[in-house]
Amino acid sequence: MTFRFSEFADATHIEPSGEGLWRAEIQPDWDIAGAANGGYLLSIVARASAAAGGRPDPVTVTGHFLSPGTPGPVTIATEVIKTGRRFATVRSKMTNADGRPLLTSIGAFSDLTDAPGPEMVSAVVPDLPPVDECVPVDPTPAFPPPFMTQVELRIHPEDSRFAMGRPTGTARVRGWFRFRRAQPLDTLGLIVATDAFPPTIFNTELPIAWAPTVELTTHIRKRPDPDAWLRCAFTTRFITRGFLEEDGELWDEDGHFVAQSRQLALLPRD
Amino acid sequence: MTFRFSEFADATHIEPSGEGLWRAEIQPDWDIAGAANGGYLLSIVARASAAAGGRPDPVTVTGHFLSPGTPGPVTIATEVIKTGRRFATVRSKMTNADGRPLLTSIGAFSDLTDAPGPEMVSAVVPDLPPVDECVPVDPTPAFPPPFMTQVELRIHPEDSRFAMGRPTGTARVRGWFRFRRAQPLDTLGLIVATDAFPPTIFNTELPIAWAPTVELTTHIRKRPDPDAWLRCAFTTRFITRGFLEEDGELWDEDGHFVAQSRQLALLPRD
Repeated sequence: MTFRFSEFADATHIEPSGEGLWRAEIQPDWDIAGAANGGYLLSIVARASAAAGGRPDPVTVTGHFLSPGTPGPVTIATEVIKTGRRFATVRSKMTNADGRPLLTSIGAFSDLTDAPGPEMVSAVVPDLPPVDECVPVDPTPAFPPPFMTQVELRIHPEDSRFAMGRPTGTARVRGWFRFRRAQPLDTLGLIVATDAFPPTIFNTELPIAWAPTVELTTHIRKRPDPDAWLRCAFTTRFITRGFLEEDGELWDEDGHFVAQSRQLALLPRD
Repeated sequence: MTFRFSEFADATHIEPSGEGLWRAEIQPDWDIAGAANGGYLLSIVARASAAAGGRPDPVTVTGHFLSPGTPGPVTIATEVIKTGRRFATVRSKMTNADGRPLLTSIGAFSDLTDAPGPEMVSAVVPDLPPVDECVPVDPTPAFPPPFMTQVELRIHPEDSRFAMGRPTGTARVRGWFRFRRAQPLDTLGLIVATDAFPPTIFNTELPIAWAPTVELTTHIRKRPDPDAWLRCAFTTRFITRGFLEEDGELWDEDGHFVAQSRQLALLPRD
C-alpha cells in the first residue's frame, strides 16, 4: 500500500448511492492505534447526514461507536426524521463492506452562518501559552501515525507531563488544534477536534491505555475560523464504575466559544 | 376529563405491538405548560428501547425532541443496532396517532447491577441545605400542574430567588428531587430528574421563558437509591448565538455520583 495523505475533505467524501444511501471510504491515513479515529468516522457520517437533511452544519450530533473502522468502503444509510424551519433531524448508520455496523448517529443540522442572540459566557477561555511554547505531538509509537500526520496538536506544557511519565494527577489536557498542511477547518472538522487529543486519563495515576468511546456528542455553536488554531480543553471529573466522561471545550484563537463535546468512554480493564 | 394520578411505572407502561413496535400512552398528568415533560417522554422511549435490547438500564441515552407530546396513544418503533457482551445499542422513534414524530433516540443499554472500577471523582457534591430548609416547588401558574404534582422539588434557597423576581445572576439551579407519593426511583426515572427543574436561565437577567430542548443526553453510572432524595445541580455556562446548554449532575443522598446530563436548548426569542 502506498502511504499517502488524503485531505479531510477528500477523506470524508461521500457519494449518493440510492435512496438515503451514501458511499464513502475510510482512508488509511486517519488511523490511530489500529482503528480509524472516532471523530473522523463520525465526521463522515455527519457529512452524509447534513447532505441528506439539506443543511450544512451539525448543531448537535451524537454518535455511538459499535466496531472499529478499518480502511475500505462503507455505506451510510441516512433517514431524515424531520425537516423543520431551523433544523433537519437525521439519523444514520454506517456499515462496512461486510454489513457490520460501525457507527450510528442522530443529529440536528442547520445553517450556522447567521445566529444572533445575547452572549453570556461564564466559562473562562482555556489558559494556553502561545502555540510555539506548547508541546507538539508528533507521530511516535505512543501517538501512532498516520492520524497524527493529519492533525497538529500543541499541548499545554503542564498537561504534557504524562509523556515524561510524570502525570499531573489532574484528568485534563489543554492544547491547540489544527489540521496539518493548512487544510481549512469547518464544522465537520470540529468533530475530529473533539476526539483528537490524548485521553485526559493519561494525566492520572491510572495505567496509560486508550479508553474506547461508547458515545460522543458535540454541540456546535459557531463556524470556526477556517485558517486559525483552535484553543481546546478536555477534562474528566467522574471516573466511576468502569466509565468516564470527557468534556471538551473548543474556542477560536481570538476567544469566541465554538463548540463543546462530551464523550462516555470505557475505563480500560487490566 | 377526570384528573387522576398515574404513577411513573404506569405512565411509562409499554406493550409490544409487532416486530420492534411498542404501544404506550402519554398520560395527561405528566404535562407541563401544554406539553408532556421531555424527560418523561424520553423515559417512555428508553423503556421501550431497553425492552427491545433486553438490558434494563440506560447507560447513555440521547433524545431529539421534534414535536410537543400531548396526551394520547403513541407508537415507539425500536431497532436493535447491535447486541454486544456489555451493551445493546438501540435506536427508536416515537410517533403519535397522526404519525407525527415526537422524539427520536439512540441509547446504549446494559445491566448496572454490578459495575466495579476505581472511583476518582474530582467534582464536589452539590452543597445543599437539608431538604426541609430548601424551597418546595408546588404547582402554581409559574410551575404548572399537573407535572409538579408528580415530582417533588426542593430548591436551594439561594437559587430560588428568581421566584421572587430577584435572579441570582448565575445560571444555576440546585435542589433535591424525588417522585411524589413514595414512587420508587429507577434508572428510567433518572431521565425525568434530568429535565424536571426550572431552567437555569430563570436565574439570569434574561426574560423568564421556557427554553425548548433540542437534544438531551443522559449518562447513568449507577442505579439510584429507589427511596431517597436525589441531590441535583444544573448549570449553564454558555449562552451564545441563540443556544444554551444545561449540564446536570445527579447524586445519591449519601454523596455517590449517579448520573450526568447535558441538554442543548433554544434561547426563547422575543
